[in-house]
Amino acid sequence: MSNLQTMQLPKHVSICEVAPRDGFQSESEWIPTDKKIEIIQRLATTGVKTMEVTSFVHPKAIPQLKDAEEVVEKTIDLPNIKFRALVPNLKGAERAINSGIKKLKLMLSATDSHSLSNANCTVQEAQDKLSPIIEFASSRDVEVGGSISVAFGCPYEGKVSHKNIETIIRRYNEMGVKEISLADTTGMGNPVQVFEMIGQLKEKFPNTTFSMHFHNTRGMAMANVYAALMQGVTHFDSSIAGLGGCPYAPGASGNIPTEDLVHGLAEMGVETGINLSKTITAAKEVKKMIGHDGGSFILKAGPNSELHVKPSGQSKIDN
Amino acid sequence: MSNLQTMQLPKHVSICEVAPRDGFQSESEWIPTDKKIEIIQRLATTGVKTMEVTSFVHPKAIPQLKDAEEVVEKTIDLPNIKFRALVPNLKGAERAINSGIKKLKLMLSATDSHSLSNANCTVQEAQDKLSPIIEFASSRDVEVGGSISVAFGCPYEGKVSHKNIETIIRRYNEMGVKEISLADTTGMGNPVQVFEMIGQLKEKFPNTTFSMHFHNTRGMAMANVYAALMQGVTHFDSSIAGLGGCPYAPGASGNIPTEDLVHGLAEMGVETGINLSKTITAAKEVKKMIGHDGGSFILKAGPNSELHVKPSGQSKIDN
Repeated sequence: MSNLQTMQLPKHVSICEVAPRDGFQSESEWIPTDKKIEIIQRLATTGVKTMEVTSFVHPKAIPQLKDAEEVVEKTIDLPNIKFRALVPNLKGAERAINSGIKKLKLMLSATDSHSLSNANCTVQEAQDKLSPIIEFASSRDVEVGGSISVAFGCPYEGKVSHKNIETIIRRYNEMGVKEISLADTTGMGNPVQVFEMIGQLKEKFPNTTFSMHFHNTRGMAMANVYAALMQGVTHFDSSIAGLGGCPYAPGASGNIPTEDLVHGLAEMGVETGINLSKTITAAKEVKKMIGHDGGSFILKAGPNSELHVKPSGQSKIDN
Repeated sequence: MSNLQTMQLPKHVSICEVAPRDGFQSESEWIPTDKKIEIIQRLATTGVKTMEVTSFVHPKAIPQLKDAEEVVEKTIDLPNIKFRALVPNLKGAERAINSGIKKLKLMLSATDSHSLSNANCTVQEAQDKLSPIIEFASSRDVEVGGSISVAFGCPYEGKVSHKNIETIIRRYNEMGVKEISLADTTGMGNPVQVFEMIGQLKEKFPNTTFSMHFHNTRGMAMANVYAALMQGVTHFDSSIAGLGGCPYAPGASGNIPTEDLVHGLAEMGVETGINLSKTITAAKEVKKMIGHDGGSFILKAGPNSELHVKPSGQSKIDN
């Protein structure tokens, strides 16, 4: 490759806002339902077109999301937004669909260790259990996407083989699921790996749509986004103010912040249809409402476009 | 480009540790000379081969570095390390060379606004003033590298034209300086820009060695490193614990942390010759000695290799 060759990135990508699910569930303190609804309404003003609005999980597993029905009921009519909900089982799928959700997200882990820790069963067992959910959704004309957690590294096993991922995707495809979200759940991925893996997966599964869910635990999220963009990926998850990813767990940090992603993509010339300044305002408000952020750069530094007034007098040497 | 094509990155890169200059100068509280020396000695044990050890600047401009001579005198004999020092003028160059420094770094800004604010003169005036320094260094058989601050974006002017950068590099070359450091001083760069700019510069200046100095102000540093690697860049600056870049200034954040860079490069399969675990230990100690870090991910999260023990019992849904 000539070093003059410009890397062609997609001109436009879609961002799914996941704070109302992945962010909220990480908060130990109860977020009142009306506050959740207010945040979702606020996020809807930024121009974001898809949102993971909640998870229909057993209230005992994640008490924070026990108000899933009420949250969906009070937000489902927001215009120009497509909502999806995470469902762990058939019961959750029924609750979601009865609440008006038109798109379900399923999840399982890339490794048995993570699967056993997260879902008390092996990967294959977890995937087998998805069949009735997919059939039910299909019978109700509801879309289904499948996600794979710890796809770029497992905190218990380390590296994850491409073969594992391919097997899971093949089985998802056989079950009729053609939209796959690859999650770097604990931020172990790197751009070389992302570039190679997505390249191979796109060759092997040309009819599958891949979306990326990156956490910034080790500072690699934006590099991973860039690598995925170079492979033509056009679907990314992010979370306002970087909420999520267990900010209280030692060593962990959040999803890539929506304001950082929208800013970074705009700087790279990639459109998102999302208004950056409204997103920054929303991030500030959400941070205030929740009491913290999850490692947002743009909330700290401001966007590139916010130029400074040249100071008078000589300053320190600045390099 | 086929999406199966593997991006060829360099197999080995050199890292220059800049905390003793760029990090220390940002600290408002005085760091005692023996503490500085201890930190430099500690850093030398990690396997890092080049270090920007101080700046020979007027003590009134940067009081923190007024002990430059003593610091150099007590560290210059450390084995296997090549020291360089920043010098702003001929007086500084004389002090540096008389202290035993064998490599000088010169600096100027990419824009007149930043140059006027930083050095009280235009870019061209600043570059003209470098001539006697370069001649003096040459007469004493001392190497000279030239840096360009705010090369990827100016906090006063915004975008910086490639033409400005090319003019500065051409003049540096004419003055005999063939090693150019491009600094993203306030973290405004993005990987698309870095990839395109370095590609063009390497074509236009095939005999110039480029090194990169990235700040992580807007979360883009690692993506920018990755873009530069794809263009074959093999020289990077970083700062232990991310020190530097005025951590007290609102919105600013530090240099890319050495531990994050060494970790990220190792994950990408790029060797640095630097021991990661010794670097993390050094970063922890430096953070303790200085009282804070500058936004280190690896100090928070630990390296990928630090696997967790699978917890017993079912945990929260983790995606």
